[in-house]
This record gives sequence, C-alpha cells and structure tokens, in this order.
Amino acid sequence: MDIRVEISILLDFYGELLTEKQLRIMQMYFNEDFSLGEISEINQTSRQAIHDLIKRCNKLLSDYEQKLQLAKRNNELRENKEQMLSLLDKLKTKDNSSNDIINKIEKIVIDL
Amino acid sequence: MDIRVEISILLDFYGELLTEKQLRIMQMYFNEDFSLGEISEINQTSRQAIHDLIKRCNKLLSDYEQKLQLAKRNNELRENKEQMLSLLDKLKTKDNSSNDIINKIEKIVIDL
Repeated sequence: MDIRVEISILLDFYGELLTEKQLRIMQMYFNEDFSLGEISEINQTSRQAIHDLIKRCNKLLSDYEQKLQLAKRNNELRENKEQMLSLLDKLKTKDNSSNDIINKIEKIVIDL
Repeated sequence: MDIRVEISILLDFYGELLTEKQLRIMQMYFNEDFSLGEISEINQTSRQAIHDLIKRCNKLLSDYEQKLQLAKRNNELRENKEQMLSLLDKLKTKDNSSNDIINKIEKIVIDL
C-alpha cells in the first residue's frame, strides 16, 4: 500500500492519541496535500521542524498499530462482514419465508 | 462496575501501551491481588512510589479508553454477536435445509 494512504488510515484510528498540533499538521500533510513549505509557513516554523514532527508522528502511529492492531483488525472485520452478507444473500435465495429474520441479521452485520 | 474489575479490563486492551515495568506492577496489583506493601518490597521501592505509579497508570488507561473506546466497542460487539447467534438459532428452527449456510455464518460470528 502507498505509504501516504497507510499513514492516512492510521491517522483515522490513532489520531486521537496525538496532540492537537501534531494531528493538525499530520492531517494537512497526509489528507489535505499541503507541502512541507506551506505547512511550515502557516505554522510559522522551519521546514525541518515540520519534517521532524511528521517523522516522529509516523513512528508513533506505526508503534500504536504494532501494539493495538486496530487497522489490521478492522480489515479482518470488513472481510468477515462481506462473507456474512454474501452467505445471508444465499439464504434469502434459498428460502424467502425467513426474510424478516435474515434482514434483521443483515442490519446488525452492516452496522458492526 | 467495580473499579478493580474496570481497570483490569482496561489493562487487557491498553496494557501494551504501558512500559514493561508499569504493566508488571499494574498486573500484580489488579490481576494478582498483591498489596502495595508486597509490590514495593518486590520492586525495592517505596509504597508511595508504587501508589503514584498505579494512580498515573489508572489515569493513562482511562484516557486511552476515552479516546479509543476499545472496551466500550468490545461490549457492543459482544451484544451484537449474542443477538446474531440468537437470530441464527431461530433460522435453524424454521428451516433446517439451510443449516450448512447458517452454520458457516455462525462460525464467522463466533470468531468475530
């Protein structure tokens, strides 16, 4: 996976664990496509300081993922949901007298 | 919920985010029922130091839960699993010709 996409996903899961300033700068760089130069100008600090902050936060996010594996587990959940929805579809085709119960299960699966 | 049980649950989710020493002492206190006196003796430090470490870690664990809500989300997942399993049981009673598909879904739900 592209490193920018990967970091952007980790930000979704662990952004709350960064400081407000770290989160804002990481979002500018990884989600809003600002350049280092633009971010340093807006934050009135050096490019090097922004570069170091981003590098430090990348490491923090990777460490959190290594320890808690929220992104990995979320991927697994998504795959399991797809499998369940496809099996529920098969059930509907086989026996449409139980569609009310199947629909209830489907709703829970979608909201997982 | 009893505060000791609550902290013990948070340790399961966020223990990895503590240092090795913090985790060991928290587990001794909350999971293995050692007293402050015993823990301070084993770690060759003061009761006050152990007391402060535990208080600091309680705060850390509560902050992690407030930000990531892993324990809360796990509770919700458990409730959803119970509901799905009970609905799948109903399906089996209604139509046992689809049991192979229902069993596959059930297996995925249990492993979620």
